Amino acid sequence: MARKINDTIIYNNNPVITKWAASVGKKEGEGPLGSEFDTVYNDTTLGEDSWEKSESKLILNTVEEVLKKGKFVWKDIDCIFSGDLLSQCIGSSFAFRDLGVPVVGLYGACSTMALSLINASNYLEGCCADRVIAATCSHFCSSERQFRFPLEYGSQRTPSSQWTVTGSGAAILERDSDGVNVMASHIGKIRDMGITDANNMGAAMVPAAADTIAGMLNDLSLIPESFDAIVTGDLGFVGSDILIEFMKKEYNIDISRVHTDCGKLIFDREAQDVHAGGSGCGCSGSVLCSHFLNKLFSGEMRRIMFIATGALLSPTTVKQEESIPGIAHALILGRRN
Amino acid sequence: MARKINDTIIYNNNPVITKWAASVGKKEGEGPLGSEFDTVYNDTTLGEDSWEKSESKLILNTVEEVLKKGKFVWKDIDCIFSGDLLSQCIGSSFAFRDLGVPVVGLYGACSTMALSLINASNYLEGCCADRVIAATCSHFCSSERQFRFPLEYGSQRTPSSQWTVTGSGAAILERDSDGVNVMASHIGKIRDMGITDANNMGAAMVPAAADTIAGMLNDLSLIPESFDAIVTGDLGFVGSDILIEFMKKEYNIDISRVHTDCGKLIFDREAQDVHAGGSGCGCSGSVLCSHFLNKLFSGEMRRIMFIATGALLSPTTVKQEESIPGIAHALILGRRN
Repeated sequence: MARKINDTIIYNNNPVITKWAASVGKKEGEGPLGSEFDTVYNDTTLGEDSWEKSESKLILNTVEEVLKKGKFVWKDIDCIFSGDLLSQCIGSSFAFRDLGVPVVGLYGACSTMALSLINASNYLEGCCADRVIAATCSHFCSSERQFRFPLEYGSQRTPSSQWTVTGSGAAILERDSDGVNVMASHIGKIRDMGITDANNMGAAMVPAAADTIAGMLNDLSLIPESFDAIVTGDLGFVGSDILIEFMKKEYNIDISRVHTDCGKLIFDREAQDVHAGGSGCGCSGSVLCSHFLNKLFSGEMRRIMFIATGALLSPTTVKQEESIPGIAHALILGRRN
Repeated sequence: MARKINDTIIYNNNPVITKWAASVGKKEGEGPLGSEFDTVYNDTTLGEDSWEKSESKLILNTVEEVLKKGKFVWKDIDCIFSGDLLSQCIGSSFAFRDLGVPVVGLYGACSTMALSLINASNYLEGCCADRVIAATCSHFCSSERQFRFPLEYGSQRTPSSQWTVTGSGAAILERDSDGVNVMASHIGKIRDMGITDANNMGAAMVPAAADTIAGMLNDLSLIPESFDAIVTGDLGFVGSDILIEFMKKEYNIDISRVHTDCGKLIFDREAQDVHAGGSGCGCSGSVLCSHFLNKLFSGEMRRIMFIATGALLSPTTVKQEESIPGIAHALILGRRN
């Protein structure tokens, strides 16, 4: 059973990420991490006639990929934890119809990969499940239409705006197996510092990210250099710089030597015209479930803190000129042996 | 630690619902259960200038009410589990800003009260938390605008359409305390039988409800009469009749003697012009967190199966003429002593 130190959960029942898979679209495949993803879809419609269906197919295919890697079939899975950015989480719900697998729907905006992994770990910890899948997805085209404008409008993007990743990450978690261990987790608190610019979501998510990182470091008496990397997802270029400054100023913690961000890693800032970098559930989902889990499993990295950040706005709140609440959920991942 | 029999989770670490509170709007207050709710808001704006803010205030007030009943303050709570019907779950997210409490965002449409109670129980079971809140809400006016038409249009409703409840339910869960025990739970599978009529959501949710009820009865070798009531929420009048027929035909199980539905209980069908009854996360949330938990705690009822049902559609999928996936999550609630 788990132990708690303040808001940090420490696992004793050994939840392990045993398999992982990541799929992305064409643009992400052309980025610096392109060769690390399991699947790159050059046709981002995935053969479907709506972007929403394309997104559902993306996550379903990714989950099927991870099942195949583990040589499992649906009935071997106790539960799927998933969520996405689309209103009423239809990306996930429509994907997982009639599979015969229980589904826990989550909403954490771009923090969903961490939220699904934490829930998966907590279910395993209490023996409420034995083998589960944590997954998420996002699609540039469905997100643009929902949150901004249909692509056909050809609207211009601001310098601080981020590019929603077409991507999906999925992981199988079991107990007492070989893989990457979930050592601890930290569920985030909702922070809102009054930022109202939906084209600067990185900045809106900084206070939540800082709160979660500082909370976890303090609860466990660790320093930033206790980790090979403190990986946020997805503050992008603008938000990452703000995070480092904000943490120095507000918490007297300097993460600059070990900090990196999935939204910075997935695109080439100069060559790919993505402005402030990548965003979307599928950004941290696909980067974790390829690049980082591969490095942790091979031993190239020993231990990371993974903090997925979410901006909890909606198209309605943007039109109503409300501020943007942020949240950030974190896990410590590494190999025990 | 929990035990699993197929998809049913049996708790051994004694998660208990120790406090509960329910708030509703004027119309719900005028219904048959009106006197059982903790708070009835005759002004359903709750003093706010948008329906979305009214909904957020409704759930925040309800959670504050349950805190007060337990003589707790925010820092006594390890985690809030919550979700709602609004796109990107803004009802909950905007309510729980800057409270200093970790938040797990859930999406299960109208099944959210069960989903939040199950997650709360599973966290307690693995000692990932010690005292948590499970909550949900819905608001007639924000839902009508989002899913159907702004109220100002004065559009007509079909005979099978349900009335989204303005209401919220919240519960505190702890281990080894006095209250109503969570004995077992069952996470639902997403079922889609191809129903496309968004004005007949009761029917769309029937296959999922039937699957969950039959699954739990079979896993535990129980019969419908093992319970004082099998309580669905919210199939309404139309969906409830279909459920009883469907379960007889497809599963050879007759629940007619013990079945009831939160959407049928909350309104007076004749006097209140609600067509097929109540719906919305806040319907099963407010009815469970008043009527049923009160009866279980007092001993008037000994044991119930509570199955909250969700229709996982979105305004976008309705316009795209997609079918409506359904889900149903269930718990067995009762007093151990």
